[in-house]
Amino acid sequence: MREFILYSRKSVTTPSFPLNDLPSKGGRMDLIARCVISSLWISRALRKDSRFYTVLNGPPNPPLTVNFDGKNLKSVSPNERNIASWIKKALDLWLKVEERAGEWFDVQEGIKISKMSFQELVKKFENRNIYVLHEKGKNIRNKKIENNPIFILGDHIGLPKNEESFVERFGAKKISLGAHSYLASQSITIVHNELDRRNL
Amino acid sequence: MREFILYSRKSVTTPSFPLNDLPSKGGRMDLIARCVISSLWISRALRKDSRFYTVLNGPPNPPLTVNFDGKNLKSVSPNERNIASWIKKALDLWLKVEERAGEWFDVQEGIKISKMSFQELVKKFENRNIYVLHEKGKNIRNKKIENNPIFILGDHIGLPKNEESFVERFGAKKISLGAHSYLASQSITIVHNELDRRNL
Repeated sequence: MREFILYSRKSVTTPSFPLNDLPSKGGRMDLIARCVISSLWISRALRKDSRFYTVLNGPPNPPLTVNFDGKNLKSVSPNERNIASWIKKALDLWLKVEERAGEWFDVQEGIKISKMSFQELVKKFENRNIYVLHEKGKNIRNKKIENNPIFILGDHIGLPKNEESFVERFGAKKISLGAHSYLASQSITIVHNELDRRNL
Repeated sequence: MREFILYSRKSVTTPSFPLNDLPSKGGRMDLIARCVISSLWISRALRKDSRFYTVLNGPPNPPLTVNFDGKNLKSVSPNERNIASWIKKALDLWLKVEERAGEWFDVQEGIKISKMSFQELVKKFENRNIYVLHEKGKNIRNKKIENNPIFILGDHIGLPKNEESFVERFGAKKISLGAHSYLASQSITIVHNELDRRNL
């Protein structure tokens, strides 16, 4: 099992964003959708052993966490608009349920939403091996990656300093992907390829 | 310089496709847009040394080739809808110009269109080092990649057999990216990362 957590500073926490403007009015919902694609799809197949979480910290109801699970996912197509429409449905459901912090609500097979902050989510992975994608980390190609790893990524602005300090206190190790700083979705692809090659 | 050529079987060759339905009515225009992103963008920057070509073979005017050049690109945002809107503008321009086969028409800085088939495009790269992404190719990590490489990719269905034979007769070498078959956009990311690490 490989799990990816994307911290999104600006992605909105209301279903009212327009599907025609994911980058601006959605608060980079396009970026999240591409990360879902790179986490869960390969050619002609879903990665059954992969899960993706994004913590949405944009207005008006932050934080909310949405989870996509490659094992159970159905009726979702790997393109920005379709995935964003499912996030919209998740946010819509959350408005309708009685809020219970930390509880997961099923949006549809393979998609869940919860009133959960980044730190609350990370705490759920205590005793797991957590890695933070970071330009100053150790080169992943020379690094042992333990079984069932969790990878944490920031959005286009990066992980906020306080969250970075939090995951470091939590024992997360910094890893890098080479000389360049890649888009979040590209980083996920590179991590997957490295672990695929190791049969991890 | 790194150049990527995506053969697209179904992407339409008319500007009339709706931006709200890139996968179906656009003939997988979403896939092309994601390949443009992975070819030309990293975090907070364009790859000035990278070019992307896609040969559109869908109805009603195939084949047409669109080129995005990271060196000159302006006013384009790395998301599916925005990039598709530029392809739409390219197709619109092509309807208006006097067709001269093989000539490039400037859509805007960094974007061109031409009445050019896949084979005509590949012929322009005679004497260059051409690589085909292929599941049965040699592992890229153990393979010397020459300077200024051209990489050829098929879409979600793969490269047609006759085009595969053509590029092989042209001296193209098959390379693979590991045990899995990746999405075209993911393949481009993995190739870039490998060459970034070699400073190629």
